[in-house]
Amino acid sequence: MTVHLLGPIQLEEEVERLIEWLATFGKTEKGGVTRLLYSEQWLSAQEALKEKMEECGLAPYFDDVGNLFGRAEGSSPSSKTILTGSHIDTVIEGGKYDGAYGIIAGLLATHYLLKRFGTPKKTIEVVSLCEEEGSRFPLTFWGSGSVTGRRSFKHIQKIVDSKGISFVQAMNECGFGQERFRQPFRNDIQCFIELHIEQGSVLEKKKKSLGIVSDIVGQRRYQVKVVGESNHAGTTPMPCRKDAVAIASELITYLMKQAKQVSDQLRVTVGKIKVEPNVPNVIAGEVVFTIDIRHHEEELLEQFCSTFSRHFKNVSAQYNVDILLNEWLNVKPVKMDQQLLRLSKEIAEEQNLSHEILVSGAGHDSQMFGTYCPTALFFVPSHNGISHSPKEYTAAAHLESGVKFLIHYLYRLAY
Amino acid sequence: MTVHLLGPIQLEEEVERLIEWLATFGKTEKGGVTRLLYSEQWLSAQEALKEKMEECGLAPYFDDVGNLFGRAEGSSPSSKTILTGSHIDTVIEGGKYDGAYGIIAGLLATHYLLKRFGTPKKTIEVVSLCEEEGSRFPLTFWGSGSVTGRRSFKHIQKIVDSKGISFVQAMNECGFGQERFRQPFRNDIQCFIELHIEQGSVLEKKKKSLGIVSDIVGQRRYQVKVVGESNHAGTTPMPCRKDAVAIASELITYLMKQAKQVSDQLRVTVGKIKVEPNVPNVIAGEVVFTIDIRHHEEELLEQFCSTFSRHFKNVSAQYNVDILLNEWLNVKPVKMDQQLLRLSKEIAEEQNLSHEILVSGAGHDSQMFGTYCPTALFFVPSHNGISHSPKEYTAAAHLESGVKFLIHYLYRLAY
Repeated sequence: MTVHLLGPIQLEEEVERLIEWLATFGKTEKGGVTRLLYSEQWLSAQEALKEKMEECGLAPYFDDVGNLFGRAEGSSPSSKTILTGSHIDTVIEGGKYDGAYGIIAGLLATHYLLKRFGTPKKTIEVVSLCEEEGSRFPLTFWGSGSVTGRRSFKHIQKIVDSKGISFVQAMNECGFGQERFRQPFRNDIQCFIELHIEQGSVLEKKKKSLGIVSDIVGQRRYQVKVVGESNHAGTTPMPCRKDAVAIASELITYLMKQAKQVSDQLRVTVGKIKVEPNVPNVIAGEVVFTIDIRHHEEELLEQFCSTFSRHFKNVSAQYNVDILLNEWLNVKPVKMDQQLLRLSKEIAEEQNLSHEILVSGAGHDSQMFGTYCPTALFFVPSHNGISHSPKEYTAAAHLESGVKFLIHYLYRLAY
Repeated sequence: MTVHLLGPIQLEEEVERLIEWLATFGKTEKGGVTRLLYSEQWLSAQEALKEKMEECGLAPYFDDVGNLFGRAEGSSPSSKTILTGSHIDTVIEGGKYDGAYGIIAGLLATHYLLKRFGTPKKTIEVVSLCEEEGSRFPLTFWGSGSVTGRRSFKHIQKIVDSKGISFVQAMNECGFGQERFRQPFRNDIQCFIELHIEQGSVLEKKKKSLGIVSDIVGQRRYQVKVVGESNHAGTTPMPCRKDAVAIASELITYLMKQAKQVSDQLRVTVGKIKVEPNVPNVIAGEVVFTIDIRHHEEELLEQFCSTFSRHFKNVSAQYNVDILLNEWLNVKPVKMDQQLLRLSKEIAEEQNLSHEILVSGAGHDSQMFGTYCPTALFFVPSHNGISHSPKEYTAAAHLESGVKFLIHYLYRLAY
């Protein structure tokens, strides 16, 4: 039993210390972290992590987009790499754990294994992926996308940030994108293992220490424009109105009712509404609202979307108004690897670790890796489910238990 | 029969010419009119109208808030005044007809009667009321309110416009508010007769030339705040949500359904919505929306409002969210005078004028006069119901037929 083999592990203080240390790169006045791709704070963090990797006995190197790897060469000849880690970038005023925890956990776990058991049979690499959030440039998953070939330099040629600085210029100024480092695309990855904070409150509510992700949801996003007729609130009889707010409210109410009926796992959100002219005593002539729809089964997504589209068409005809539907995002669901999932459950049970199999409602680097190589994604609890905020918090005990789980996991895969 | 007594009247060109002339004071680049209370344009318009009144054989004078009267003294001793007119101020980028038409019509009608029949038995005054819209300062009905004693100097002491200019300063700079003119409050008004554009499309749709107003609606306005819980759109299961947009949509859908069931005359409008944080992939934590409710029966208004308030409370309990309801406007309905209404119908029938008895869904100066003296309000059609816009338009034939009706009306009251 691996549990006896490894013995008791004390990492609580160390994992908290390293989380705080990494959070100093890009720390904000409000106690959050802003570490945008190719910024000064980002580059300092990657360079500091490179040193830390060396201290942990790993051989660090960058690829040409700025992904940082720390390699522990395996003894078995021609072994493929077991890759673990997450992303180093943050949203604006983000928290200390999102992304960072997966890198720190990978570092600590590998360091522990190297110290305790020496050279692994199979090569382990810890990765600090350069970008996932899409917070500086309008492009997500640049790090994992480059490794897996889902992103390439052709995707970034015309992209600029909010200050007008081009993606290419920002990358070059950090020393990347000039063929001074190895090409990012890899064909030697055996599997990808990611540890992340949940960014939801399911684990906390169910009092579980570990989430084992079975699927990452697919997402569809729409913009809906209801074109009514602006008119005087006092002089226009109700039957003569084409009130865009009234119609939009009816559509949103329908969406929510449908969502709750179709599947427990379906998540439908209308987060943004814009009303024209948006004046109390004027009937709205136009309402634009967004729909965010997520589920882990493509078929169900497709069916839900075609059902509500049909309903919207009927409402459009009923009220004789235009309802314009624009799908601007369509990301397919991704399944995590079944064999790795079985191993996860096995280890969690062995370790008496309270765990929950769940679907990830948010996107992660594992989404890019999931269609490229066997991939496993684990969650530790997020206090109150808060993320992308300075209030993001995971208790040290949960952080530690995640790292311990990763130690056992990597041991089983690499030793 | 008065119809024979007066004979054929040709006023189409004259009424159009005067409307265009008055619209030159405050004309905007977009072809609209902006004539705010106590502005340069406003003062020029009142001064020009004063001259025009003299040309029409009326004795003009201002009161101390800037209401302009043109008086045709009656022969009958101690006769009270028959007052007709409307307001001279406009909204920002308003049209040429709103308010202005009632003044022009009063002028033309009185001028015609004086030329044709000489001195009336009873005194007629044409009034250009200084303010109705509330477009410069946060106060409405300043003109009619001052005449009827519903407004006084105590209401304006602390009021400033968007540039920080105080009401008192603006008034003083036009020469008013310094006791140089007569006090505005009157106790010698026999009745008030107002001709106005409909600002709705009922007359046009029903192909009627004249609207005879039976009631002016009461209005209640609310601000509703739904305090939900902002959360991640992907990681928060539907049953765990307190989605302020979903709840607000349900409330609005309920309001609209109820409104249609309760009464044909009830008008309910949600014109303004503000969502926080208003981001596509974040569940809204807060929605603030407005409700505008109008009907001509106070009892029905009261019942509708208490019913929906009760429902909102139930929804608040059902979803365990705060729903805060703030009533910030409560104006009672006003009935037009029954005797004047009978006279209106009689004259319209005599003149073979296609007419409709209707409720005014908008506020007018007649609302102030209606609880102070017998009041009659008439509408001419608004093309497409458009008002408060440079596109406001009433065909010359309708303008003329309104003036003719007013001639007959004033003849019956004053000669």
